[in-house]
Amino acid sequence: MSFFETHRARLDQAVNACRTRAYWSAFPEIASGKIYGETAKADGEAAFKAMLGKPFDLGQSGAKQVGQEISPYGMPLGITYPADNADALIESSMKAGEAWGRASIEERVGVCLEMVERLNKQSFLIANAAMHTTGQAFMMAFQAAGPHAQDRALEAIAYAYDEMIRVPREVNWSKPQGKGDPIVLDKVFRIVPRGVSLVIGCATFPTWNGYPAIFASLATGNSVIVKPHPGAILPLAITVKIARDVLKEAGFDPNVLMLAPDAAEAPITQELAAHPGVAIVDFTGSPAFGQWVRENAATALVFTEEAGINSIVIDSTGDFRGMCANIAFSLSLYSGQMCTAPQNIFIPAGGIETNDGHKSFDEVAAGIAGAVDKLLGDPDRAANILGTIQNEATTKRVTDARKLGRIVRDSSASPVAGFDNARTATPLLLAVDATDDRAWGEERFGPIAFLIRTASTAESIALASQSARRKGAITASLYSTSDAVVDQAADAFARAGVALSVNLTGGIYVNQSAAFSDYHVSGANPAGNACLTDSAFVANRFRVAPMRRQKVA
Amino acid sequence: MSFFETHRARLDQAVNACRTRAYWSAFPEIASGKIYGETAKADGEAAFKAMLGKPFDLGQSGAKQVGQEISPYGMPLGITYPADNADALIESSMKAGEAWGRASIEERVGVCLEMVERLNKQSFLIANAAMHTTGQAFMMAFQAAGPHAQDRALEAIAYAYDEMIRVPREVNWSKPQGKGDPIVLDKVFRIVPRGVSLVIGCATFPTWNGYPAIFASLATGNSVIVKPHPGAILPLAITVKIARDVLKEAGFDPNVLMLAPDAAEAPITQELAAHPGVAIVDFTGSPAFGQWVRENAATALVFTEEAGINSIVIDSTGDFRGMCANIAFSLSLYSGQMCTAPQNIFIPAGGIETNDGHKSFDEVAAGIAGAVDKLLGDPDRAANILGTIQNEATTKRVTDARKLGRIVRDSSASPVAGFDNARTATPLLLAVDATDDRAWGEERFGPIAFLIRTASTAESIALASQSARRKGAITASLYSTSDAVVDQAADAFARAGVALSVNLTGGIYVNQSAAFSDYHVSGANPAGNACLTDSAFVANRFRVAPMRRQKVA
Repeated sequence: MSFFETHRARLDQAVNACRTRAYWSAFPEIASGKIYGETAKADGEAAFKAMLGKPFDLGQSGAKQVGQEISPYGMPLGITYPADNADALIESSMKAGEAWGRASIEERVGVCLEMVERLNKQSFLIANAAMHTTGQAFMMAFQAAGPHAQDRALEAIAYAYDEMIRVPREVNWSKPQGKGDPIVLDKVFRIVPRGVSLVIGCATFPTWNGYPAIFASLATGNSVIVKPHPGAILPLAITVKIARDVLKEAGFDPNVLMLAPDAAEAPITQELAAHPGVAIVDFTGSPAFGQWVRENAATALVFTEEAGINSIVIDSTGDFRGMCANIAFSLSLYSGQMCTAPQNIFIPAGGIETNDGHKSFDEVAAGIAGAVDKLLGDPDRAANILGTIQNEATTKRVTDARKLGRIVRDSSASPVAGFDNARTATPLLLAVDATDDRAWGEERFGPIAFLIRTASTAESIALASQSARRKGAITASLYSTSDAVVDQAADAFARAGVALSVNLTGGIYVNQSAAFSDYHVSGANPAGNACLTDSAFVANRFRVAPMRRQKVA
Repeated sequence: MSFFETHRARLDQAVNACRTRAYWSAFPEIASGKIYGETAKADGEAAFKAMLGKPFDLGQSGAKQVGQEISPYGMPLGITYPADNADALIESSMKAGEAWGRASIEERVGVCLEMVERLNKQSFLIANAAMHTTGQAFMMAFQAAGPHAQDRALEAIAYAYDEMIRVPREVNWSKPQGKGDPIVLDKVFRIVPRGVSLVIGCATFPTWNGYPAIFASLATGNSVIVKPHPGAILPLAITVKIARDVLKEAGFDPNVLMLAPDAAEAPITQELAAHPGVAIVDFTGSPAFGQWVRENAATALVFTEEAGINSIVIDSTGDFRGMCANIAFSLSLYSGQMCTAPQNIFIPAGGIETNDGHKSFDEVAAGIAGAVDKLLGDPDRAANILGTIQNEATTKRVTDARKLGRIVRDSSASPVAGFDNARTATPLLLAVDATDDRAWGEERFGPIAFLIRTASTAESIALASQSARRKGAITASLYSTSDAVVDQAADAFARAGVALSVNLTGGIYVNQSAAFSDYHVSGANPAGNACLTDSAFVANRFRVAPMRRQKVA
């Protein structure tokens, strides 16, 4: 049975899920031996450990070896990867892309589906790799880099497939000519790829953010070069290796998918992005570099996720404790290093109405701070939620931020059992006035949040949505018992292109974005120009080459 | 009954036609009184004449009046149009766009469908306007600026509608939690527009090339500013006026659609395209200005149709006379001023096999030249096919081209009854060698064609497809009785992103691109980055703003 037939049912379900956007998932997020096999956890950890301290067996040629990853948990990985220059990579990619671009839709999509299936089987290995590059806690690394990323990959494949099969393969076109014979043409429509697709990865969610682009481009017939962040190569190297094996088995040149690792001191991303051989660029990273890519890439086909400043607007609540607990979790999860994590919490100076009666600004601030303390009170739980700090610069940012407002809750280190050198920081909460926009009006990536005193909820909504339009935002969160306020916020955030969550109090958080249902990043504000995943993310990755032939009478 | 309900059946048929790409058309191309009303022709001509020599009643404010259109048939139109500066136009457009962007999909699509319906009713007026700006013959002006353009508009509306309704409006998302209660969110997905859409028109097919962008942007909620070519304002002014009436009737600010005419000596296109208020740019025109737009527009969302060099490869034929007649018509139609018209005809030096026996290179050249002479032998028929030359520069280009090769057929003026000052030129045919690529390797817009002597059909295909990759091409045409040659050409032109026509001998020509079936421009070579019309042309003109709300227990 072909790869396509093997995975056909899953593909159909995925296509359907993209349409309905009801809950669906292909890959279980529970790291259970019952699902993944009783030895899967131990096997994954052993495989990870076996990779440490030696060259990674990627099966790609390279003029040199690079790689200096250091786990945020404290130890260097000691893994090196074969690296080549931009010209060599792009030449190999173009060559491999010829046959891949001519393959049938079903052949390519089948290969992509098999790749994702095999990635799923290695979720524990990938979890270890993600944990020790991104610095996430193990469970989060498992979910975000494993099944959740795999779902995002499948979603992109489903969109690409659905878009390609909307183009008919052939048609008999017959134009009536009054009483004369009709004009008849046989038309054939061929899907042709763009060419070489460059995917530039990030350090915090290398697979979750990278897979949609990788698989959207592969499915539509492009060859792909993955440029990982120098701090998080391993999760993508494992991905590329697994995928190359599938390509080989299916009879394709494995260079259809290549890794382009570099060293921080000798970066090649700009050379790759500006190379005339590159036809598509996908970028996840900082707005500064994102701007460079948008302005200097060799192609206009650039998809970005950059960054933004996410807000919470607190107007009123029917569940004060639930609200504070929910916000505390959102601030703490992966130490605020998610692109969806909130930074700015707007609260009216006059306080809010709650199920526990009126709460002043300070009481709301104290409620949230107390909920963070409670959540992180148990060291094991704290470690499982906070993970570590991916980048040293973030630790410094937390230190520097202390002077930006009145400290409501200070940041501190948080021990991780077994990792004495782990780099950690709990959330820093600062109270500021709405006028202090030099403090809250910039992105402060990491566990830094502002409690912002506004004149009213109307001002809160206006400031948060204006900030989103100006600086970008991926998420917004609102707490209100008033439908009128919800409607007002819905209008304001929709116009600013921000995904709004309302009254989250249970086990679901504004940070979370579910494949097949939530559109991640709107593309309508500076937080990014693309969305994971919609039609626009896939439709321009291929073109249609038509041929029409006059029927011989 | 709402506009949407009124036109619902037509929309459904259009959506279906876009999927199957079988023959379908909503608007009859036959300029018959039986279809359009017995007085329609006379009414259209009278309405056109009533517009001459006075300010055009657009219903738009303007700081000044501009307009110096001169008919290629010889007389100035004497019409002026209200003009405003970029800031004022964009401010009005943004303001009008607020309510338009909030309207429902059905409301907007209904308004767009009604606009097209009313444009169809004015096809004779638009035909006169198109004839005396583009210089096309009346019948071609009727079809291309009227029903064919209306079909292209409907196609864009159908694609936009289909793309928007693929996004569910709402969903109840319920995530199982093992034995616990599921997490339930009510999700709402709102279509939000990009903002102000700028459509930059051309002088040869102002409505046919402009409508897809105008209606794709309007349907997806954007307000639209139409910047016509100073030489062909009237067809778009009539369009905008008719559409503004519909907007007013439907309760919208008519500035949802505005005209931005300018004078050739004081152009505002660059100011508009680079204005930070512009979110989408659609451009039809020269590669030089197209490059400026791509590099300098305020937005990355730029759709272009620029220009290319289209080829015919002659390998062999089973109908020599039919082939020569077909090519002669393609070269003559609108005097080679179609973006789909062939320029380069590649013929093996050793000649070709035909149903009339072997034909040498010179015999093939003479066959085509003779067919042109025969086609244009009758002055009335010649005038109906050739039309006139839109731009004086094209006439000069024909004159200058004479020295580029051996003249096989010279260009001459061709009288048009009733228009003594019409600017005309019949096709110039030049024989050159494959190595003379300084002659044939550049676009020579107008009635100029090269008969290129190659070593073999394989060389012909290679040169034609390489030229397409380098300089762009929209169409290619092949004559061959060999399936192997057809396959070889199909591969080469598909990789070059060129629409290939094979063995056209009857009443269908390589220049023709039918709405709902032919993809016009692939977007995969320098002839343009967009296609009329595919999903990629519409999917990024809107974004999705999601809201999710936790269900209160």
